[in-house]
Amino acid sequence: MTLRTRDIELREPAGHGRVRLHFTPSGRDVRVPPGVTVFDAASWNGIAIDSTCGGHGTCRKCLVRIDDGNVPVSSLDIRAFSADQLRKGWRLACRAQATADLRVEVPPLVTRPKAATVGVGRQVILRPAVQKRYVKLDEPTLADQASDLDRLLAALDDLELRVDLEALRLLGRTLRAHDYGVTAVIVDDVLIAVEPGDTTARAFGLAIDLGTTTVVATLLDLVTGTPVAVSSTLNRQQPFGGDVITRISASMMEPTALDQLRSLAHETLDSLAREVSDEADVRLDEIYEVSLAGNATMVHIALGIDPEPLGVAPFIMAARALPEIRAGELGLSVHPGARAVVLPSLGAYVGGDIVAGLLASGMDRDRRLRLFIDVGTNCEIVLGNTDRLVATAAPAGPAFEGAQIRCGMRAADGAIEVVRIIDGALELGVIGDVEPVGLCGSGLVDAVASLVVAGLIDSSGRMVTEERAREIAPGLADRLSAIDGKRVFVLSDGPGGPIYLSQRDVRALQFAKAAIATGWSLLLDELGIGAEAVQQVLLAGSFGSYLSPASAIRIGLVPKLPVLRVVSAGNVAGEGAKMALLSVRERAGALALLHEVEYVELSDRADFNDAFADLLAFPS
Amino acid sequence: MTLRTRDIELREPAGHGRVRLHFTPSGRDVRVPPGVTVFDAASWNGIAIDSTCGGHGTCRKCLVRIDDGNVPVSSLDIRAFSADQLRKGWRLACRAQATADLRVEVPPLVTRPKAATVGVGRQVILRPAVQKRYVKLDEPTLADQASDLDRLLAALDDLELRVDLEALRLLGRTLRAHDYGVTAVIVDDVLIAVEPGDTTARAFGLAIDLGTTTVVATLLDLVTGTPVAVSSTLNRQQPFGGDVITRISASMMEPTALDQLRSLAHETLDSLAREVSDEADVRLDEIYEVSLAGNATMVHIALGIDPEPLGVAPFIMAARALPEIRAGELGLSVHPGARAVVLPSLGAYVGGDIVAGLLASGMDRDRRLRLFIDVGTNCEIVLGNTDRLVATAAPAGPAFEGAQIRCGMRAADGAIEVVRIIDGALELGVIGDVEPVGLCGSGLVDAVASLVVAGLIDSSGRMVTEERAREIAPGLADRLSAIDGKRVFVLSDGPGGPIYLSQRDVRALQFAKAAIATGWSLLLDELGIGAEAVQQVLLAGSFGSYLSPASAIRIGLVPKLPVLRVVSAGNVAGEGAKMALLSVRERAGALALLHEVEYVELSDRADFNDAFADLLAFPS
Repeated sequence: MTLRTRDIELREPAGHGRVRLHFTPSGRDVRVPPGVTVFDAASWNGIAIDSTCGGHGTCRKCLVRIDDGNVPVSSLDIRAFSADQLRKGWRLACRAQATADLRVEVPPLVTRPKAATVGVGRQVILRPAVQKRYVKLDEPTLADQASDLDRLLAALDDLELRVDLEALRLLGRTLRAHDYGVTAVIVDDVLIAVEPGDTTARAFGLAIDLGTTTVVATLLDLVTGTPVAVSSTLNRQQPFGGDVITRISASMMEPTALDQLRSLAHETLDSLAREVSDEADVRLDEIYEVSLAGNATMVHIALGIDPEPLGVAPFIMAARALPEIRAGELGLSVHPGARAVVLPSLGAYVGGDIVAGLLASGMDRDRRLRLFIDVGTNCEIVLGNTDRLVATAAPAGPAFEGAQIRCGMRAADGAIEVVRIIDGALELGVIGDVEPVGLCGSGLVDAVASLVVAGLIDSSGRMVTEERAREIAPGLADRLSAIDGKRVFVLSDGPGGPIYLSQRDVRALQFAKAAIATGWSLLLDELGIGAEAVQQVLLAGSFGSYLSPASAIRIGLVPKLPVLRVVSAGNVAGEGAKMALLSVRERAGALALLHEVEYVELSDRADFNDAFADLLAFPS
Repeated sequence: MTLRTRDIELREPAGHGRVRLHFTPSGRDVRVPPGVTVFDAASWNGIAIDSTCGGHGTCRKCLVRIDDGNVPVSSLDIRAFSADQLRKGWRLACRAQATADLRVEVPPLVTRPKAATVGVGRQVILRPAVQKRYVKLDEPTLADQASDLDRLLAALDDLELRVDLEALRLLGRTLRAHDYGVTAVIVDDVLIAVEPGDTTARAFGLAIDLGTTTVVATLLDLVTGTPVAVSSTLNRQQPFGGDVITRISASMMEPTALDQLRSLAHETLDSLAREVSDEADVRLDEIYEVSLAGNATMVHIALGIDPEPLGVAPFIMAARALPEIRAGELGLSVHPGARAVVLPSLGAYVGGDIVAGLLASGMDRDRRLRLFIDVGTNCEIVLGNTDRLVATAAPAGPAFEGAQIRCGMRAADGAIEVVRIIDGALELGVIGDVEPVGLCGSGLVDAVASLVVAGLIDSSGRMVTEERAREIAPGLADRLSAIDGKRVFVLSDGPGGPIYLSQRDVRALQFAKAAIATGWSLLLDELGIGAEAVQQVLLAGSFGSYLSPASAIRIGLVPKLPVLRVVSAGNVAGEGAKMALLSVRERAGALALLHEVEYVELSDRADFNDAFADLLAFPS
C-alpha cells in the first residue's frame, strides 16, 4: 500500500458517527466510520467480495449491488457497468464509499477466498500485498514490437502497476533466457522483480514486533497464510537504556548516538531475519515484504528519525503514518526490492504496537465494550467498541519490568513468576524450574495480591505488624521481617541469599497500578459509563499477557469484574503485524484506526491527581 | 510525475481519431486524442487555467464550464461543486476527459501565469514539477499534538503528497531550529525536502540532451523559466564506439562493459552538472529535478538496463515510458531527493530525443503538415500534423558523422562545414577559421550539392570525365584528379596534405540520403499525399541543424520544395527536455505522443528496396 498520508485526512474527523452496512445474503450488520469503502467494510468483517487487484479499481471484479442507500457513480463504475446496471445499483465495492447507512447485496464468489485465524480469534481473508503471477508471453516479432514491459503489463491487465527500475534492469534478460515464461513479483501496486519460470508457490513475509526490550520476528508463508518460523531476541539497543526515555536521552546527549541506535536496531532485525529464514529453509530473497509494529520511539529510531520531540512536552511525532519504504531502510537483507510497512502510531505514547494490538483484537469491530491494557513502563489503555474508542497512555513506571524493585528481574530463568498462598502456605512458580534468583513483574503482582488477600498488606499498602501477622497468618508471619532496616516479606531464602518483597516495592507497584487505574477510570468517565459496563478486559503486551487476571483484579490494576471477563491477549502487536502482511484490507484498517480512536492526553488533566490519589489504595 | 505506465494504456490506441475542443472566450479550437483531459488540452495549447496542484485533483481550482458536450461528473466534482453547478456543466478541468467534441468556457484567471518561449517558438505556461512553498506553522502544544508531518501537510492542503523518508528524518529538527518557518520542496507529488526559512526564490532544474556523441546540459531557473548556464561535452563512452550499435555490441561482448558504459555516462553527466552549477553560482543541492532526452540505447545504458534487445531484430525496448527514478540513478550529485524524468521512447530507433524534438516543435499540435527529420547515423523521420502523425527510422549510416568518408571528421575546428561554388570559383567555410583539416557532414552535403549543380557530378552520382569537366567548369577542372588510383575532387591542398571528396564518399552520401528519402517517401505514401503537400521541413539534431537547406534539397535529402519551407530546428531534443522541466503538462504531452504517433517499421517492408533504388540518384 502506498501510504498517501492524505488518504487519512480526507476522511471525517475521529468521533462517534458510524454508518451501518447491512450485507445480504449473509445478513451481517457492520458499522464503520463514514467514508470507508464497501469493500473495506466487508473485508474487515470477514465478508468476502471478489477482487484480484486488492481494491485499486483496476480489476473491476468487486461487483456489489446497493439495494438501499445512495452511492454516487464513480468514473470507474461508468467503465464497468451499463447504464441499466448503474440504475439498478451496481457499483464497484472498492470505489463505493459508505457515507450513510446502506444495504448491500454481495454476489456469490467466483473464487473461493482463503482465510487464516490470527490475533484474538480474528478471521482474516488472505490478500497479501505481495502477489506473484506466472505469465507466458508471446515472443516479440517485427510485426509486434511492444516493449518488454508493455508485453508483461498486458498480461497483468487487472493491475495498474508502478515499476521499480531494478525490475526493469533484469526484465529483458530474464524473459529471453527463460522462453518468455516468468513470474512477476508485485508488492501492492509495484512490480519489484521478475523471476525466471514459475515461482508462484514461494512467497514469504516477515512480521516484526519491535519492542523496547524484546524483538520478535515471524516468517509467514504468504501463499498459505501460515507462520513457518518464529524467533525472538533482546533488542541490541539495551546498553543505551532499558526504556524509551533513556534511549531518547541518549540520542540527545551524543550526536552519533542516533546512528548507533539505528544500527543496533538494524542488526537486531537482520539477525532475526537470518535466523527464521535459516530455520524454515527460505532464501532471504524470497521475503518480499516486511511489516513492523513498534512504539513510536522504536520506529523513529529504526528509521533514523530524530526521536527528541517524542521525549519532551508536548510529545510530538514526526508522522503518524509513515511513508512507503524499502525493507533495506530497516537494515534487512531480504529481497532488494522488498517493501516495509510500518504500523502507524496514534500518538507519541500510543504507538504502532498498540495500533497493531487493536487490529489483532478487533477493538473497532466488536460491539462488546472492551478495555485493552498494554501493561509496561508506559502503559497504553484503549476503551470502547465499534461505536466509539478512546485511548490514553499512563506513565506506570518500570516496576512491571522488574526495575526499581529490590529483587526485581526480567522474566527469565530463575524469576519467580507465580506466587500463591494456598492453605496458609506459600507456593512459588519459577521460570525454568531452577532456584529462584529474583522476582519478575507477574510475580510481583501475584505476591502483592496474595499478601493483600492474606491480610498481610492492608488496603493502604502497608505491611501489617508482626503481631498482627502472627494472628491472621501464623504460617507466614516469620517471613515478615526487616532487611537493612526496611520491612520486607521473604519469598525464598536459598543459597544465593533471600528473595523478598520490600515495603518500598509494594509502594512502587501501588503507584504503577494507580497510574493505570487512573487511565481507565478517566476513560470510563469520558464514555460516561461505570466499570461494570466493561464486558471484556484484554491484558496485552509481553508483560500483560503473563499477568494473572485474578491478581490484576485483586490489586485494582483492572476494574473489579468477574475474573472470566479478564483475559490474556498474548503478543497482539506481533499478531497485528502478521495481519498487515496477510491482508491489505487489514492494513488499511490500521490506518482507519488513526481516525477512529480519540486520544485523551492525561498529562494536562486537572482531575488526574484526584483520581490517582483515590486509586492508590488496594480495593477492599 | 509518477509515470504510471498504465496511464498510457488507458487511452485509446494510436490513430486518426481526435476530438475537437472549442475554448471560450479565447475562441481557440484545439484537437487532442480522445481521453486527454480538458486541462491538458488547454495547457498544451497555451490556454491558461488556474491550478496549484498541477492536475492531481487536489487543489480544486481548475474550474471550467462545459457549454456543449458531455463530461461525466467525477467523484472529485461532487466535492467541488453544488448539484446546481454540476447541472450547469461546471467540472474540474483536470478530471474532465474529452471523449467527444466539447465547448469549454474558461473563467478569468485568479493568478497570472508565467510563460516562457522554448523550442520552435513554443509558448510554455510555467508549471514545473518542482514547487517550493514557504510555510510558518503554529508551534505544537499539549492541546494540539498533531505530528510534525500532519502540521506541515495541513499548510499544503491543496496538494496530496507522498513523503520521502529523508525529508521526514530532518523535519522535526528543521522545524524546531527555525521557529517553525520552513520551505517545503515538492517534486510532482512528493515532498523531497524541508529547508530552513524561506528559500522559495531558488529552485533549479537540469535539462540534459544525452547524445551518442555530444551531451548538452542546460541549468534552468525554475522560478523564472530561464536558462542560467549551458555546457556541452563529448560523451565519455566514445572509446566503446562512435554509434549506438558499436556500444550495444560492446555490452554484449564483455560482461563488465555495461557497467563501464553506465559509469562513463554518469561521469559525463555529473561533470556537466558541476560545470553549469559552478558557472551560474548555484549549489548542486538547489537542483531538484533533472530531465533527460536521449535515444533508447543511451537511456537504457545510462539506467543500467541491458541494451542487447535494442540491437538485434526485432529491436525491442525494455520500456517505452520509464519509471519514476531519482537523479542519483544517473550518477548526478544534485539534491539527494532530486528526481529524474526521462523522456519516453516511441521505439528502439525513435527514442526520447525524438519525442523531445516533437514536443519542442509542437508537431502534434500544429495544423500544418510538417516533416521532421533528425539527421544522423540513425535518422528519425516524423510526418504529419495535429490530425495524424507517422514516424519511422532510416538507417542512414555514419556518412553524416564524417565516418567512412575519406577526409571526414566531426564538426570541430578545421572542419570544412560550408562549400559553395560562386562564379565558377570554390569557396570554403572552415570551423574556427583555421587551415582545413577535414570535411564534416554539412560540408560533405554542400560539396556534393555544389558539384551536382556545377555538373561535375552527374545525376547518377558519378564524377564526370576530366574532358567534360574542362568543358563545363574550366576553373574547377584541375581539382578533379585521382589519388591512390581513385577519382577525387580536391577541396583544399594545404601544408597538411590535400582535403578531398572521393567518388566513394559521394556513393556513401547517396546511400545515406536515399535511405532518408525512402523513409519520408514511404511515410508520404502512408498518408496518401505527395511531397508538395509538406508545408514545412524541420531539420533537427546536432547534424541536421547545421545543414544548408538548399543543399539538402539539391541532393534530395528532403523533398523538392521552396527553400523557405526547409528550416533548421536547432537542438530540439534539448529544448524538449527543458519543456519537460518547465511544465508538467508538457511532460504529460510527451507521454501522449506515444499514442499519437504511429510507428512504421521499414526493415520488413517489401517496397523499401524499390523506393530506395528509385531515390539513389540526385534529383534533376
